[in-house]
Amino acid sequence: MHEDFAARLAERVARTGPAVVGLDPRVDALPDAVAPGQPPAARILAFYRLALEVLADHVAAVKPNIAFFELFGSAGFAAYEATCELARQRGLLVIGDVKRGDIGATAEAYAEIHLRLADAVTLNPYLGTDSVAPFLARCRDAGGGVFVLVRTSNPSATELQDLAVGSETVCDAVARLVDRWGQELGDRAGYSPVGAVVGATRPQDLARLRRLLPRAWLLLPGVGAQGGRIEDTAAAFDAAGRGGLISQSRSIMQCFAPADPRWRDALAAAAAGFAEQARRAASNGTRR
Amino acid sequence: MHEDFAARLAERVARTGPAVVGLDPRVDALPDAVAPGQPPAARILAFYRLALEVLADHVAAVKPNIAFFELFGSAGFAAYEATCELARQRGLLVIGDVKRGDIGATAEAYAEIHLRLADAVTLNPYLGTDSVAPFLARCRDAGGGVFVLVRTSNPSATELQDLAVGSETVCDAVARLVDRWGQELGDRAGYSPVGAVVGATRPQDLARLRRLLPRAWLLLPGVGAQGGRIEDTAAAFDAAGRGGLISQSRSIMQCFAPADPRWRDALAAAAAGFAEQARRAASNGTRR
Repeated sequence: MHEDFAARLAERVARTGPAVVGLDPRVDALPDAVAPGQPPAARILAFYRLALEVLADHVAAVKPNIAFFELFGSAGFAAYEATCELARQRGLLVIGDVKRGDIGATAEAYAEIHLRLADAVTLNPYLGTDSVAPFLARCRDAGGGVFVLVRTSNPSATELQDLAVGSETVCDAVARLVDRWGQELGDRAGYSPVGAVVGATRPQDLARLRRLLPRAWLLLPGVGAQGGRIEDTAAAFDAAGRGGLISQSRSIMQCFAPADPRWRDALAAAAAGFAEQARRAASNGTRR
Repeated sequence: MHEDFAARLAERVARTGPAVVGLDPRVDALPDAVAPGQPPAARILAFYRLALEVLADHVAAVKPNIAFFELFGSAGFAAYEATCELARQRGLLVIGDVKRGDIGATAEAYAEIHLRLADAVTLNPYLGTDSVAPFLARCRDAGGGVFVLVRTSNPSATELQDLAVGSETVCDAVARLVDRWGQELGDRAGYSPVGAVVGATRPQDLARLRRLLPRAWLLLPGVGAQGGRIEDTAAAFDAAGRGGLISQSRSIMQCFAPADPRWRDALAAAAAGFAEQARRAASNGTRR
């Protein structure tokens, strides 16, 4: 019996707070001193080998975005695999930001590889339960987790996610599906391994989706570079200050100039500051 | 100036008809005689090296499903890259079945790699225009194409895609977005590079979506193993018998027993028969 993802996450967050750092590698933002002259995928991996050691002291999880690895083809995919493994060796939970969504044997294949590489993955709900079921089976049997896109942080999220369906919206209907999937997995610890992605750029949505998703960890991207404010995420946390994960990427991982020889100190300071802000936002959730 | 994807597709379909073969590699279904004892990704690529030569005589395009390649990690990703290249060398168009959907720099990264490897890709619309825009830019500037999921062929497609939005459904609203994206790309040849995926398992939807999407090539999976019938796809074609692509995977690529030494003959016969059925379904479109 593998340990439940929600329980592992709760344990880690109790120690570090709810900060998650997105890994969106950009070659032109890597420290100049890291593996100079090497191919992009090798430089990316060399950077994370050092950076994950720093991050592990401060944050709960990392969220590598596979697109920026796939960009470098099979060498990039290998760097994604190695990055996930390094992070887990450091005690960080890994949320693979893969946003996959497909059906049948295809969904099985995605679930098999991506929940082997990462502790949890992001999923797209457009195809419904069929596309999520193989992942749910692995949540139950192998301790994996999922975060289903419910309300994303980008401007055009309105086009589909905010369409009115009766008295609610498409994203509310998706939230109800996500809650059902979480219920079906049992719910020993209050939270289930079935989480949701809810953009932090629209604080007015957070309280409503928190109510619709009482069992779901809410993964909150969109703070920092995308314009959301950490302090506005309080509504995503429960009355005990739990159930939310605040994610930032560029503002942490690109907090230094590439030429800065002391980039590790800068990264440590940025990660520590972000972690502290995230803990404060969570504790503000208790004051509602 | 690259040639428009819709024009390249029309030219190819005029020669072969509208059959597309999905490549969903399953190691246990490969011919025993192909690269025995090699690692999975090497066997898959060795198989396609032979099979694509056969398929190129019969069908318009292949649709490799990247999940079955990713399953084998970076070696699988390399096999995907090589399979795409082999297919294009044989004159086949390649529709990368990647179903990606993300925003901002992430969408840019996916567009850059996946429209470099394939002529066109499948996309998920849940995040709206932001997630499609970088692909549309490459359709316009580099001759790529996209097929956006509108109504998928799986049972739980109803959960989200068939929700009522006013007098229509979510998938109808997505169809209107897809049509708008196609209009914005200009429309020199009648069809645009912005196509749609419409499952063939629900013939009643095809005529309606054909009307909502007058400029879109409709990619029709779900015939064969998933239960749709080729003859029921006629409504997806225009009055001139154009604008549809019928996709089959397992019933063609697994038409032989692994032990059969004459698997190439079986594959050629299956592909030729499918191509003939597809041409007939398209020409039935003209009799409405």
